[in-house]
Amino acid sequence: MSGIMRIGHVDLNVLDINESRNYYVNIMGMDVTREDADGTLYLKCWDEWDKYSLVLRPSDEATFNKVGYKVEKDSDLDDLQKKIEAYGISTEILPEGSVAECGRVLKFNVPSGHEFNLYAQKTFVGKEVGDTNPRPWPFEGRGIKAHWIDHILLMCEGPENVMASTKFCQEVLEFNLAEQVCVGPEGSLQAATWLARTSTPHDLAFVAGPETGMHHFAFFLDGWNDILRAADVMAMHNVKIDVTPQRHGITRGETIYFFDPSGHRLETFAGLGYLMQPDMPTVTWTEDELWRGIFYHTGAENGAFTTAYTLSAYK
Amino acid sequence: MSGIMRIGHVDLNVLDINESRNYYVNIMGMDVTREDADGTLYLKCWDEWDKYSLVLRPSDEATFNKVGYKVEKDSDLDDLQKKIEAYGISTEILPEGSVAECGRVLKFNVPSGHEFNLYAQKTFVGKEVGDTNPRPWPFEGRGIKAHWIDHILLMCEGPENVMASTKFCQEVLEFNLAEQVCVGPEGSLQAATWLARTSTPHDLAFVAGPETGMHHFAFFLDGWNDILRAADVMAMHNVKIDVTPQRHGITRGETIYFFDPSGHRLETFAGLGYLMQPDMPTVTWTEDELWRGIFYHTGAENGAFTTAYTLSAYK
Amino acid sequence: MSGIMRIGHVDLNVLDINESRNYYVNIMGMDVTREDADGTLYLKCWDEWDKYSLVLRPSDEATFNKVGYKVEKDSDLDDLQKKIEAYGISTEILPEGSVAECGRVLKFNVPSGHEFNLYAQKTFVGKEVGDTNPRPWPFEGRGIKAHWIDHILLMCEGPENVMASTKFCQEVLEFNLAEQVCVGPEGSLQAATWLARTSTPHDLAFVAGPETGMHHFAFFLDGWNDILRAADVMAMHNVKIDVTPQRHGITRGETIYFFDPSGHRLETFAGLGYLMQPDMPTVTWTEDELWRGIFYHTGAENGAFTTAYTLSAYK
Amino acid sequence: MSGIMRIGHVDLNVLDINESRNYYVNIMGMDVTREDADGTLYLKCWDEWDKYSLVLRPSDEATFNKVGYKVEKDSDLDDLQKKIEAYGISTEILPEGSVAECGRVLKFNVPSGHEFNLYAQKTFVGKEVGDTNPRPWPFEGRGIKAHWIDHILLMCEGPENVMASTKFCQEVLEFNLAEQVCVGPEGSLQAATWLARTSTPHDLAFVAGPETGMHHFAFFLDGWNDILRAADVMAMHNVKIDVTPQRHGITRGETIYFFDPSGHRLETFAGLGYLMQPDMPTVTWTEDELWRGIFYHTGAENGAFTTAYTLSAYK
Repeated sequence: MSGIMRIGHVDLNVLDINESRNYYVNIMGMDVTREDADGTLYLKCWDEWDKYSLVLRPSDEATFNKVGYKVEKDSDLDDLQKKIEAYGISTEILPEGSVAECGRVLKFNVPSGHEFNLYAQKTFVGKEVGDTNPRPWPFEGRGIKAHWIDHILLMCEGPENVMASTKFCQEVLEFNLAEQVCVGPEGSLQAATWLARTSTPHDLAFVAGPETGMHHFAFFLDGWNDILRAADVMAMHNVKIDVTPQRHGITRGETIYFFDPSGHRLETFAGLGYLMQPDMPTVTWTEDELWRGIFYHTGAENGAFTTAYTLSAYK
Repeated sequence: MSGIMRIGHVDLNVLDINESRNYYVNIMGMDVTREDADGTLYLKCWDEWDKYSLVLRPSDEATFNKVGYKVEKDSDLDDLQKKIEAYGISTEILPEGSVAECGRVLKFNVPSGHEFNLYAQKTFVGKEVGDTNPRPWPFEGRGIKAHWIDHILLMCEGPENVMASTKFCQEVLEFNLAEQVCVGPEGSLQAATWLARTSTPHDLAFVAGPETGMHHFAFFLDGWNDILRAADVMAMHNVKIDVTPQRHGITRGETIYFFDPSGHRLETFAGLGYLMQPDMPTVTWTEDELWRGIFYHTGAENGAFTTAYTLSAYK
Repeated sequence: MSGIMRIGHVDLNVLDINESRNYYVNIMGMDVTREDADGTLYLKCWDEWDKYSLVLRPSDEATFNKVGYKVEKDSDLDDLQKKIEAYGISTEILPEGSVAECGRVLKFNVPSGHEFNLYAQKTFVGKEVGDTNPRPWPFEGRGIKAHWIDHILLMCEGPENVMASTKFCQEVLEFNLAEQVCVGPEGSLQAATWLARTSTPHDLAFVAGPETGMHHFAFFLDGWNDILRAADVMAMHNVKIDVTPQRHGITRGETIYFFDPSGHRLETFAGLGYLMQPDMPTVTWTEDELWRGIFYHTGAENGAFTTAYTLSAYK
Repeated sequence: MSGIMRIGHVDLNVLDINESRNYYVNIMGMDVTREDADGTLYLKCWDEWDKYSLVLRPSDEATFNKVGYKVEKDSDLDDLQKKIEAYGISTEILPEGSVAECGRVLKFNVPSGHEFNLYAQKTFVGKEVGDTNPRPWPFEGRGIKAHWIDHILLMCEGPENVMASTKFCQEVLEFNLAEQVCVGPEGSLQAATWLARTSTPHDLAFVAGPETGMHHFAFFLDGWNDILRAADVMAMHNVKIDVTPQRHGITRGETIYFFDPSGHRLETFAGLGYLMQPDMPTVTWTEDELWRGIFYHTGAENGAFTTAYTLSAYK
């Protein structure tokens, strides 16, 4: 048992930290919970209890740094380190405090080159609605009132890297493969994969593309009506929307794709989709139905889905 | 790691097997997947992949027999048997086939007296939408098109039994305590508890009552609009509705309570509620806000919530 | 053509004007647009353009005064006066300004005894979202963000008064009969009627009861999701909810019944229901399906529907 | 008073009558209520009571013939004929039966050249749910279960024709102007207008374009959730969707644009939008916010909105 619970945080470089602060606070509805001297912002959503789920670093490039996943127990880090090293991937344990507000961090790169940070401890803050007789939602919330950061889709150089990272995540990190797009001769290449540790359809995904980076990360909303409200709120704030409210065939999720002020693609993902379980048969999308899988209503490419993405910062 | 994944099936005695078949097939939207010579029916929902999630046995009493939970690996049964015996509860391993369509079954009673069956194998059938380029929902579905059986709420004789079973499920079966209602001096008694193995708010719950039995089991629906549609469909079929569409404070779920033809209370539970995780602080409802927790809108007792329930069959 | 367009305002006596102000402003989301020296408050909803739709008068009794309907042209008042007098009902024309912010008012009592005020002019204020490139809804709205006052249900002493007022409203005011509940021998008595001038299912309704008064008036919401949100908001503010979210068979509307601080019953009515037209056949509910018509899901009496109401102030 | 009540029927030429029949019956959910020897089909929606609202004529071109509006009384036709002739537009009264299932028809062309047919009588069929204790919706409905044909948007050659037809419809047919897009010097040109006789935001609309024809006609759905369901159903049937689920700024409606098998653009329009009234101030959209008005979420042109349309058949 790998002990990985869920996505813990996304770490990005942004172009204008003040514009980003305003965007994530007033439109996404997050709270700034920490601010470093160098201008780095840490933010959380109202329905999260740990100190932060998003790190925004002032920069002159809009790039992806790394993603954190939280494990259940501190000893999981040691167990996972052994397994990862045994798989042939070098790792490093960063001492407590190396990553802000976190205990020890197990750092490594998955085969596609993306940096992962695993940790068991992060400063506890609590949900905005508290844990005694809580309201179902914060009446005074701002903007789209995003619940939490739900998942990340990492872009890999070609199907080979999708397959290598997927295999590693399944075999070593014990993610379960919920869905896959299979292309090429006899569908032998995974062009994209969706992987879960929670019982939601995905906590992590990989897609083949021209470079290594981040395709998007997603905020959770309850359902289709929150999608309409979110799109309305985005319009009122002149947010650049890439793909308007839509159903995914893959995951069944209800979605909007849009961009933050630095050009990072974000998603609002709504609905449970389905109950993901280790014994649920993996859903496969064939090459001819690939776009039906991505945008169920049109079954066609839409927006800048394949051309706009965030490059990785580390090279 | 206990290996328990989710609720696997509910096993009930019903008064009129034909009336029950019609009800669960045409109104709940389930399929009969097996029928025994003695009239016992096995049914599954469209979004489930194992052979059945509901067992209905013809009887002259409408009682609760047992509940099944599925574990990840067959060896989990041996590990769990040791832990359960070490806790002082006697167990039995039933050989493959003793429980219809299942592999080995680990059988025992939790402290409140309810029979649990754990199993790692059940005949695979698959979802109605298949696993290659699937539709998000079956257009030809019947009735309320319930997705799956989501959880069960077991009634225990008094808070002592709620507390004993909760403690056992947390310590031995490694359920996580999502929410609790605390009553009595300094809130020292758990009048009800909600426990999760998946990352949904509950897969199992206990509530104090006058006798040992089942308060209800629940079908999953996507969201609030499916709740309206389900209530409309129930009305069209003269289903006896106990509690009309409503928000739970506890779990945040959207709900309807209603009865099957034998008088078993059922629920449609909609929405994810929130992402349940092992490190999420347990939500506590105090005695004065107990009813706000159960029926958020009125904050008051409603319907026959405390007086109608299903007795356990085994004495 | 009678010229009546829609319900214009409801005029009520309330017990605690400050508590009422807080309630209608912060929970219903209305704005106070005028306040008289005697403490009388005039309020409007964000989606209304005339100066007010609700008049609250400080009083030591919680009673109903009168209801106003707006006509299209000032000359409609003269035409209607002739028709009403010819029907045998005495009328009075109040000069401009007699009713706050209104032009001339045609005042009379319908056969059941309720006072009606018709007017063609009321001070114009405009919608909160303006009329140039407007937002679809006011992001900064308060509480349940009610759109407008949609209709009123007046209680009449017995079916005879329902029938007399209905006949008058059809024949003289040219309302169209959308739906009726017919009881008694061969369904010969109208126990309740729903009448429309707009193309919504009702702008006015009558129901038989023990006394003359107001059963409720209703605020419009877009749909079922706004009903959930409204019920959540009411719960957060400890509003006394009489009937939780529900479908009406009659009008197909989605509803909540609840009380204001003085005990006046209010409704949130959501959805168009259907397109009401002069040539739509009147829908009839028979005595045995009366409660299915009112509360579609249970088909049973619910809450204090027949026992709680507002008495008329004039005796 | 003009007596016009609502849109009565749309009359189109289609390329493959069998494919069209299948489409409108199984995907839109209409019923064929009459079939002529020449293959012409007449269809109605479940929530309409008159014999038909759509006429499909087998043809080798996919063109628009005419639109019918129903008036309240037969004498309205005579009154309107006088007013229209006085306005300088020639008219013709077709005897009963000239238009299938209709009484006398007042035929004329509005200034933009589109043929209008007004009639007071059409064979009555009734709603599918009946008018005694009706269900709120037909459980056995097909496809998207469209309620009724809601409105038509006619394309006019240039703003001059939009303005001429709008003026005529306001002054002679007594439509009320709900919204307008104003372009050109000081916004002096109406590029599009939305006109109402019912209290919904529009029963008729005009938009400037390169040729005379029909931009689309729309089916009514209750709300945003029916929009998602409809888009899912369309995807399951491979309907060509032009614009996926979206909010209109204009009318506030929730929408999908898509094509029938002949290439006629259709819309599903959901929600009341707002209560349209003769005294509601006309909403104006300025040239810079034109696309925000049309597609509220992106504020940008989308799909083939300006390039795909249906030509008028008569030249």
